[in-house]
Amino acid sequence: PGMRLAVVGTGLMGASVGLAARRAGVEHVAGFDADPETLAVAAEREAVDDAAGSMEAAVGGADLVVVAVPVTQLASQVRAVLEAAPDGATVTDVGSTKQWSLGLGDRFVGGHPVCGREAHGPAHASADLFEGATWFLTPGAGTDADRYRLVHWFVVSLGAVPAAIDPQAHHRLVALTSHLPHALANVLVNQAGAGRIEGHDPLAAAGGSLRDMTRVAGANPRIWVDIFLDNAGPLAEALAEHRRRIEQLERALAARDAGTLARWIA
Amino acid sequence: PGMRLAVVGTGLMGASVGLAARRAGVEHVAGFDADPETLAVAAEREAVDDAAGSMEAAVGGADLVVVAVPVTQLASQVRAVLEAAPDGATVTDVGSTKQWSLGLGDRFVGGHPVCGREAHGPAHASADLFEGATWFLTPGAGTDADRYRLVHWFVVSLGAVPAAIDPQAHHRLVALTSHLPHALANVLVNQAGAGRIEGHDPLAAAGGSLRDMTRVAGANPRIWVDIFLDNAGPLAEALAEHRRRIEQLERALAARDAGTLARWIA
Repeated sequence: PGMRLAVVGTGLMGASVGLAARRAGVEHVAGFDADPETLAVAAEREAVDDAAGSMEAAVGGADLVVVAVPVTQLASQVRAVLEAAPDGATVTDVGSTKQWSLGLGDRFVGGHPVCGREAHGPAHASADLFEGATWFLTPGAGTDADRYRLVHWFVVSLGAVPAAIDPQAHHRLVALTSHLPHALANVLVNQAGAGRIEGHDPLAAAGGSLRDMTRVAGANPRIWVDIFLDNAGPLAEALAEHRRRIEQLERALAARDAGTLARWIA
Repeated sequence: PGMRLAVVGTGLMGASVGLAARRAGVEHVAGFDADPETLAVAAEREAVDDAAGSMEAAVGGADLVVVAVPVTQLASQVRAVLEAAPDGATVTDVGSTKQWSLGLGDRFVGGHPVCGREAHGPAHASADLFEGATWFLTPGAGTDADRYRLVHWFVVSLGAVPAAIDPQAHHRLVALTSHLPHALANVLVNQAGAGRIEGHDPLAAAGGSLRDMTRVAGANPRIWVDIFLDNAGPLAEALAEHRRRIEQLERALAARDAGTLARWIA
């Protein structure tokens, strides 16, 4: 209420932020997307009040800017927005990685809503997308307390549940809960697809468990390579830990240790 | 047609075999289950024509016996059935592991339908369960050709697609497509559930990818410990290969090798 919002990047996430914010009574939502078609669809869906002709025009009068561009462009777009927006404007994002955001100063508060994104584009946007979802906030050492409170209030108004977390802890958490599963799904698909066994294609012969586990594999290589590289350190740690746990399992199998196996499954 | 079938174990799989066989016009289906309730439900569903009072009574007049008991009991039940059934009776099973079946002689033909089993019990049985599903047959060196043809014909009559495979190749195939994904799902759940990260529960913060990948974890420890132990050798090989592939990924991350990562996801 009384707040002017700008959304930079009006795909599924940005347009959903716009819809949820308008429903929450935010006074004005300006939007910009580098792709005119994406912006037009967001405007058609009434996710933005004003489809701006440039990023600078969108953020010019904003109290809060949400940057919702692909991970590849986050670092440069957030920096550009911090330059273009008035000093009073607070800037946040919706990216799942945060390594790029360290040391951005007191006007930036990192954000990461944890919610499904199987669909793409503003046509699938929904004001309900964040309802009940955890929304991590990663204030840094330099983050201004009032700006943090503004973003916290805004996230609550979208229906999400904000959870403050240290950026380094956030890296480890998403490495474990998102990047590791994605990486392993790809390892599994590559392993099962590596060759026929006596003429039988393992992937064709696979039951539901392999299909469940490999559903996320192969999803948008460009985006995921950037996510993996942005969070390479914590992901590598999670992978190494995973290898150690697999070795323990191999030892339990070699020892035919049913007790350890049962505790380990239960 | 003209064939007398016996089903030993009338849970989801056994009762579904009975329903599909009766629909295919099999003359008579006798059924037995050590659990009277399971047998009663199968009879109520008309998955069997005759709910026998003992395994011996069920298999006494059979041309073909399908053993559909849990993996733990497969080895002993198949041996007991081979003793109790007439010499003319051919015996097969529906288990996903086959290590226990080596050297059972010319009357046994191993079988393994690949189909979902999230539900349990004869109440969920369906004549359509095997429609279009791969049904592995694992004839050994000593398997009689006519008996193999009988099981092959029977599987086709249930709507499944039989695929002959060497028992050792079958071990490697299911290790890769079923036992490895199950094992990894459990490793992943244990890793993500090992502790909080700065007060945040990783499993609670998890998005859809971790949930997809861990859906099969924790499923019936008693059954899975036996499956893992029965196929421990091939599973351990698949796990070791998985570790090697994870190490390659760690090296690509350390080298920030975007090209390798992209090829590996695509």
